[in-house]
Amino acid sequence: MIASSVDDEARMETPETTQVNHGATLEPADENDRILSIQSHVAYGYVGGKAAVFPLQCIGYDVDVVNTVNFSNHTGYGCFGGTRASAEELASIFKMMDETGLLSPQRLLTGYIPNAAALEVVKKLAQKLKSRNPNLIYLMDPVLGDSGKLYVSQDVIPIYKEMFAYATIITPNWFEVETLTGVPLLSLSALRNALSILHKHVQHVIISSIPLQPWLSKILPETMQPPASADNRQAYLLCISSSRTTETSSHSTVHARLVPLIAGYFSGVGDLFSALTLGHFNNNKRYSATQTPLSFAAAAALHKTYSILEFTNAFAARLPPEDRTTTDDERDAAEPVRKLKRMKGRELRLVQGQYILREEWREGQGKDLQFWDGFWDSS
Amino acid sequence: MIASSVDDEARMETPETTQVNHGATLEPADENDRILSIQSHVAYGYVGGKAAVFPLQCIGYDVDVVNTVNFSNHTGYGCFGGTRASAEELASIFKMMDETGLLSPQRLLTGYIPNAAALEVVKKLAQKLKSRNPNLIYLMDPVLGDSGKLYVSQDVIPIYKEMFAYATIITPNWFEVETLTGVPLLSLSALRNALSILHKHVQHVIISSIPLQPWLSKILPETMQPPASADNRQAYLLCISSSRTTETSSHSTVHARLVPLIAGYFSGVGDLFSALTLGHFNNNKRYSATQTPLSFAAAAALHKTYSILEFTNAFAARLPPEDRTTTDDERDAAEPVRKLKRMKGRELRLVQGQYILREEWREGQGKDLQFWDGFWDSS
Repeated sequence: MIASSVDDEARMETPETTQVNHGATLEPADENDRILSIQSHVAYGYVGGKAAVFPLQCIGYDVDVVNTVNFSNHTGYGCFGGTRASAEELASIFKMMDETGLLSPQRLLTGYIPNAAALEVVKKLAQKLKSRNPNLIYLMDPVLGDSGKLYVSQDVIPIYKEMFAYATIITPNWFEVETLTGVPLLSLSALRNALSILHKHVQHVIISSIPLQPWLSKILPETMQPPASADNRQAYLLCISSSRTTETSSHSTVHARLVPLIAGYFSGVGDLFSALTLGHFNNNKRYSATQTPLSFAAAAALHKTYSILEFTNAFAARLPPEDRTTTDDERDAAEPVRKLKRMKGRELRLVQGQYILREEWREGQGKDLQFWDGFWDSS
Repeated sequence: MIASSVDDEARMETPETTQVNHGATLEPADENDRILSIQSHVAYGYVGGKAAVFPLQCIGYDVDVVNTVNFSNHTGYGCFGGTRASAEELASIFKMMDETGLLSPQRLLTGYIPNAAALEVVKKLAQKLKSRNPNLIYLMDPVLGDSGKLYVSQDVIPIYKEMFAYATIITPNWFEVETLTGVPLLSLSALRNALSILHKHVQHVIISSIPLQPWLSKILPETMQPPASADNRQAYLLCISSSRTTETSSHSTVHARLVPLIAGYFSGVGDLFSALTLGHFNNNKRYSATQTPLSFAAAAALHKTYSILEFTNAFAARLPPEDRTTTDDERDAAEPVRKLKRMKGRELRLVQGQYILREEWREGQGKDLQFWDGFWDSS
């Protein structure tokens, strides 16, 4: 360690002081804007905090990092080691941060919380932070499951619903929307119904990804449809942002953008997207008439996340054949190393692609979410 | 979470794929060069892994992060919450990483390890990694104490000494050198003696900081002395790098550079320095006749660490008076918040100063360590 301590602190002048300037590529995050991020930690690879913190640091935020689990790697590998933080441990960390005067973030980000007891502790924290600072921007990613499968226990669901009261933005995927609202997303009216339910509590809702199935394709405005030239085997995902217009309205301003699905399972993508959404959200800035603070943030997050995914996918495609096998549960079961190698090859390339994360984001680059005119019109 | 999974993985083509390029500002770290970093984690602020990982990511390394403690904040605040990872937890994480094929870093970085049992686990890991890969670059920061005070228990000292056998580079401060060698640094012959003892086991030694006391001032070559114009109340620290010339030689190539001391205690400085030293060390590259791989890495690390410290110090100096009090044990004891505020104001400004971390480092910018000609000459 370097010693930098002396008894006589009167000598504060340092000769040879060089002038330092902020890097021009940084987003103009307020110098004092800090984010408290509460999610999982893995030693190897990029999910949870490992997928969220570095990108937020790259765009200029100080991030306070509380780890809800300490695992060797993400659970998608099929085997992992380490421990979950108990509710008591989390509470003791928050308590000590509070007593030390270190618990006054301007933004809060929560992701995977291992169980109901731990989630209760996080709920109380969110409540406390929100009551102290009504301007707290809390992005809650209600991590429940994906593609029709829950990966948390049922008893966290009601707690997430209670936590809506403190959330500024939520970023469920389609399955999480269905789980939280009880509404299967199979029609425009179902989609409206689900958004209405969520907006009763939360001003800003992003449905991070809905597969472009026939029902959705039918209702999607012409301008948002896949290009006519597209390969018709190509699947798509829709990202929807929805901001409630007034306190009492059940209606909202809806924006959306379609992106081609990149086949294969990549972990940490949702964690990265949520972090970037929070990082790019600014409700004090003025946008053009066609955008909202939420649609702007969602566009930045979607573009950067998608670019990282393409970059990672391109890397994975160049690996030796044994490192880029396709999902095959039978063969994976017979030869577990097959899956391990595939997972390893698909870890997000955040470090190598950090120039993507740092891009300054502006409207009008052809990657904005589009206003969904008439979304709420009964017809 | 964003769903990015589909059943049919045949659809690997993605239209609209954009070309991606590496950012020009990145150091040319090998794409596949990974660092395994084993040190402390704090939720708030920048010491241990929080001071090491982001800088290494900024210069292009994938970093695997194993947390030896999970604390709310660094212990310098006087109060903190959280837990230490047990030796069993650490062993289980390493074991699982190994079984999952995730334990083959090219570089290893170790810092604060809370106790002898945990350090034994890390020792076994270092031994295993080194025996598998003799080219492993292991930077061991033997974190023992500072300014004359031990902050670990005595029983870790012999284990650190055993671990020298696996280390490529060690970065003790003057107090750690004295503790590890038993030699008080009070003369040129003592300094030679201490380096000889360390070089019996380790090829590359950096003494990260020695205060420029009269004995050192007397033996320091003329070209390394403080500028004649310097304020004579200004204190200085010397950074020494020493690379053993041959396997058997007890002599070494010594370089050094003096930097003005920045008064006040800043935490995490040594952790940042060690991380940057490892990140900039490249023993496959050719340097000019006056430099070694170690002196090059030490110069980069010293310059960037010092610049971050200046940047942080300049920030702290602009804070309101209550946030930038001087150290005064009596007043701190009477009013603990005084110390908390001071500590908070002195957290390293790594995020805001990240452009410093990302600077491409070259020789000959006037910040190199200088060759200490005749260091070993008996005279």
